This record gives sequence, structure tokens and C-alpha cells, in this order.
Amino acid sequence: MKKIAVIGSGSWGTALSIVLADNGYRVQLWGHRQNQIDEINRSHTNQRYLPGIPLSDQIIASSDMKLVLKEVDMVVIVVPTKAMREVLTNIRENLDHSVIFVHGSKGIEPGSSKRISEMIEEEIPSDKRQGVVVLSGPSHAEEVCLRHPTTVAVASHSLDAARQVQDAFINNHFRVYTNDDIVGVEIGGALKNIIALGAGISDGLGYGDNAKAALITRGLAEIARLGTKLGANPLTFIGLAGMGDLIVTCTSIHSRNWRCGHLLGKGHNLEEALNEMGMVVEGVRTTKAAHLLAHQENVELPITSAIYNVLFEGKSPKQAVDELMNRDKKDEIGPLFDMLQTKFNQ
Amino acid sequence: MKKIAVIGSGSWGTALSIVLADNGYRVQLWGHRQNQIDEINRSHTNQRYLPGIPLSDQIIASSDMKLVLKEVDMVVIVVPTKAMREVLTNIRENLDHSVIFVHGSKGIEPGSSKRISEMIEEEIPSDKRQGVVVLSGPSHAEEVCLRHPTTVAVASHSLDAARQVQDAFINNHFRVYTNDDIVGVEIGGALKNIIALGAGISDGLGYGDNAKAALITRGLAEIARLGTKLGANPLTFIGLAGMGDLIVTCTSIHSRNWRCGHLLGKGHNLEEALNEMGMVVEGVRTTKAAHLLAHQENVELPITSAIYNVLFEGKSPKQAVDELMNRDKKDEIGPLFDMLQTKFNQ
Repeated sequence: MKKIAVIGSGSWGTALSIVLADNGYRVQLWGHRQNQIDEINRSHTNQRYLPGIPLSDQIIASSDMKLVLKEVDMVVIVVPTKAMREVLTNIRENLDHSVIFVHGSKGIEPGSSKRISEMIEEEIPSDKRQGVVVLSGPSHAEEVCLRHPTTVAVASHSLDAARQVQDAFINNHFRVYTNDDIVGVEIGGALKNIIALGAGISDGLGYGDNAKAALITRGLAEIARLGTKLGANPLTFIGLAGMGDLIVTCTSIHSRNWRCGHLLGKGHNLEEALNEMGMVVEGVRTTKAAHLLAHQENVELPITSAIYNVLFEGKSPKQAVDELMNRDKKDEIGPLFDMLQTKFNQ
Repeated sequence: MKKIAVIGSGSWGTALSIVLADNGYRVQLWGHRQNQIDEINRSHTNQRYLPGIPLSDQIIASSDMKLVLKEVDMVVIVVPTKAMREVLTNIRENLDHSVIFVHGSKGIEPGSSKRISEMIEEEIPSDKRQGVVVLSGPSHAEEVCLRHPTTVAVASHSLDAARQVQDAFINNHFRVYTNDDIVGVEIGGALKNIIALGAGISDGLGYGDNAKAALITRGLAEIARLGTKLGANPLTFIGLAGMGDLIVTCTSIHSRNWRCGHLLGKGHNLEEALNEMGMVVEGVRTTKAAHLLAHQENVELPITSAIYNVLFEGKSPKQAVDELMNRDKKDEIGPLFDMLQTKFNQ
């Protein structure tokens, strides 16, 4: 039986383990909490992250990285961005053969502005990796575990690696599309959380569907402009890891980023909102990173700027929205089209 | 004071009249129900379509087309697709000077597969029109009347005409973007109703956010493929009249098309669903038109085909969704990218 390592036993890592076990793989799942590992191995559940979901006995958990990586063809990394470097170091020190790397994390490293795949390439020597693949799309973990229909994109510089990952994960309720644009898929996944903050702010202000659709649509346009400047294919943003994931994140009241924005729209300041949330809100950090990137790359991101001003400069949400509505008259897709034309003519 | 004619006194025509009156225009609003016309002129309300919304006394209603068209610079047509030819004939017979034509209708003419702007060009002699412009985007009429933030796109072959329409409508709660792709904006507005049927079916089957996001995203990809084949710019579908309008239509339980799909997903057949709705469901007719167009243009539209089979061939919704999940493995944006590359190289 083929073996795959999944690094990270949160809800998404466990859900992906279920997909792989359904497809006949033996899954070696790495976690760092001993009581959770024992629960997975003895009771075949992960109650903290996926209450009520039974796990296959082909999912074996361990905190021993060497054991987890033994004889696997593929390593699937699903840990928070801030733990990424430490986990990659642990993998590098324990991996004794070459594998395909897949990741399902969403974020940009603060300071360096690096994407996750770039961090993997930096930390893992090239003779230990046969390709780096991102897996991303509109996918609540709970629904994947219920075998409800779900679609994701897998992207890589190596089409061969992307196809191998597609083959490992695809089944009749989990549909996997390949894409050769790893930059676009990673940028779309990371930056959507900024727009989810904005959608929450708009809802918190009491605005309607029109305003939220405008934020989502114009938000995606500016993600696409920045992404294209960084080398992405603008069409990726029309896809599952762009628009698809953005829709789910902005219209689900379960989204942390939406909930944080909603509190801001209701009149709380950032500190109050984060205190009330009591957990990390990834979009806050990503807003800072994108604001810096936009400045470095000389790309105009009006919605990101407005949210930055609300988060960090004390601007009132209502004033920020009013200013967005009163910008100069614009052409809708002209700037993006020009960038694309330049790309084709290179 | 400048005068603009608005043809059609339903909720959207009346809402656009409010925007124009806010911007200082005198609006000559054409309707065909005398009691509604009297109500607009005497009580300055339109209770049937926009209950509780006060109208400016600068909105004057009439059923006399000659009077309505007198001295206007711009004619804004907002009538159902099936009434379009008759209304255009009425306009042609009563218009004695050249104007800019704007329309806010969404549909394709059954049989001819014509877009609305093509119908306008056929029915109105070229010496009576200075340009044909479509206005479309995520815009519930009720929210526009409450002056909640709303964004729309205006598209035309004539950038000058599009800019004049942008100038007429734009204000600090109604933001208007220009776009030179009239084909894309019209196709996006018409075909979104098919996908809204699908979103309703998925929700009716009890599937979750992942499945709905997949339908919306892959649905937009196939709209973009067909639209691009018909001459549209694929990037238009990432915009307000594509993705923006699609999001609102697929996530609002007020959407007729979503509601009809929801009944189908719950196990009703088309006749039962339409009987329970008791009104026209535009997407049913559009599914037929798009199915034909796809055949003529040799473009694969798997979601539209699946919905066609549910609506007209008695296929069970669950089987249709299962078949969509079990197609050959695909590349996500490759086909669209190839079409675009061909376009640039022409």
C-alpha cells in the first residue's frame, strides 16, 4: 500500500487525510499534541477539530517526524504560516529520500513577503523534492468529511507533479483540477482574507448585497492586479483558488476574517475586535503584508488600503467606504487587460 | 434641465430613474399601466414594485411614447426580453431625433440567440442612435433606492457613449465603471441565471458551501468560454457584470432562479416548480438558448448541459451532480487561456 505523510493534524490536515484514506493510501499524520495523537490512533476520531467524524484506521498519527516521513512518496503540509519554517526544518532534518511536496496553507510570510512554496524551496534541498504543489480552493473541512461535493485546484511549476497530486486526491466527491500557475493560486488563497475583512465591515455597517458583491468583485480585481505583477496568470483569479475560495470566505459567517470585519463595522476598534475573537485572524497580518507588497510593486490596491487605514490608522469604516465610492471614474478591466497584453507580448 | 427617458416602470427601471433624478435629470418614465402611471405622478410612489420608497417629483410617468421621448438625450430601456421587440418598434415609430441608447435588461432572444444590443441595432435606424450601451452589475433595486453603495459596469462599442452614460449615472452611492466589451457584459448578465438554477439545485439537495462555490466558479468558467467564443474579453467575466452579478444571484434567496432550482433539488419536477413559483423564471428559457448556442459554437458547457437534462430530460438532480463530479480529469483554466492567446495573436 502506498504511503503519504500529512504534516498538521488540524481540521484541514485531517480532512485531507480522510480523502487520501478513501483513495486507498496509508496516511502517516504528523501532530505535536500527544493526547490528540493517542485519540486518533485509539478512537479514530479528532474531536477537537472534527467532532463526530469517524477516521479510517489507515490514518496513523505520530509526533515522530522520522517515522511519519518513512517510505512516503508525497508529503502534504498543512500548518499555519507562522509555524512553517520550524516545521520545514524538522522535515529537512528527518527526510532521507526525495518526495513530492504539497501544501494547503494560506498566507504570506511577513517581512520577506515570501509565498509558502518559496519557503519550501528555500528550506528543502532540491535533491529531496520532486516538485512543489499547492492545493487550494473553496473547501470547508467539515463538508469534505461529509463527502459533499468539493472542488480544488492543484498548481505547480511541474505539471507532472501536479498531475500526480491530482491522481492521489481525486475521487467522486473531491474533484481536483490542475493549474500551472502556482503564483496565482498562492496569492489568491492568501489575499482573499483581506477582502473577507472588508465584506464583514460592509455587513457590519448595515450595507446590502450590492455593496458586498462590489467589494468581492473589485477586491478580486485588485488581487489579480497585484498577482499579475508578481507573475501570476490573471485568469487564475477567475478560478477555484481565486473567486471560488473568495466567495466561500466572504459569504460564510463562520469565517474568522468576516467575523472580525463585522465587529469593526459595528464600531469596535481592532483591539476590541481581536479580544472578542480570542484567536488569530490571518487577514489582519496579510493586510499589512499586502500593503507593503503593493508599495514595493507600485500597484494600486484601493480596497486593501482602505482596510489598512481602518485597521491600523483609526479611520472610520463608513468614511473608508464613502471614499472608495468617490474615487475617480475608472475603466473596469482596462488596467488588468493591459498587463495581460504586455505578458503575452513578452 | 436635461431630460432622459426611462422605458419600463418595474423595480429596476424605477430605481434607475431615482438615480438619474438624484443627479439632477428630469426623468420621463414610460409605463403601460395607467393606474401605476397615475400613482407615480400623484403620490410619487410605485408601491407594487418598490413599496415604501418616495420618488422625486422630477420623475414624470406616461404611457405616451412620443411624449416620453420628447427632447431627451438618452433612452434607458428596462423591459423584459420577451417585450423587447414590441417596445423597440414603439420607440422607432415615435423617436424624431438621435439619442444614446442604454439598456438594463438581461436575456438572449430565443431562436435568434440575439443579445439585447443586437436587437436595438436591428430595430432602430443608425441615424437615430449615437451609441448602444448596456448597464449591468450586482444591483438589487431596493438597495439602490436606499442609497446603499452599488457598483455597475457600462459597456459599449463606443467608448464615448459609455462615458456619457457613466457621467449621467455616477454619484457617491452608485459607482459606474466603463468597459469596452459589450458582448461579455451582455452574455454574463444573461447566462448567470442558469448557474443560479444550479446553485438552487445544489442547496435543495442539501449540499454545502463547497459545492455551491464550485458550481458558481466552474459555471463562470463555462460562461467565459462561450462568451469568449462569441467575441467577449474573458476578463470581463471577472468583473461586475460577470462574477459580481453571479454572486448576488446565487447567494440571495430572493432570486427567482435560485428558488426555482431549490424546488427542483427538493424533488419537484419543472412543471411543479414553475406552478409553485407562479411567475416567469428567466433562467429556464436561457438554459434552452445557451444549450443551443453551445451546440452551434461547439463549446462544451457541462453545467449548463446538466441543468438542461434536469429541466427538460427528466434527469434526477443528484445523478446530474454526481456525473459532473466524475468527468475526466481537467486542467482548470487551460482551455480559456488557449482561447485568449489565440485572440491576442489574431
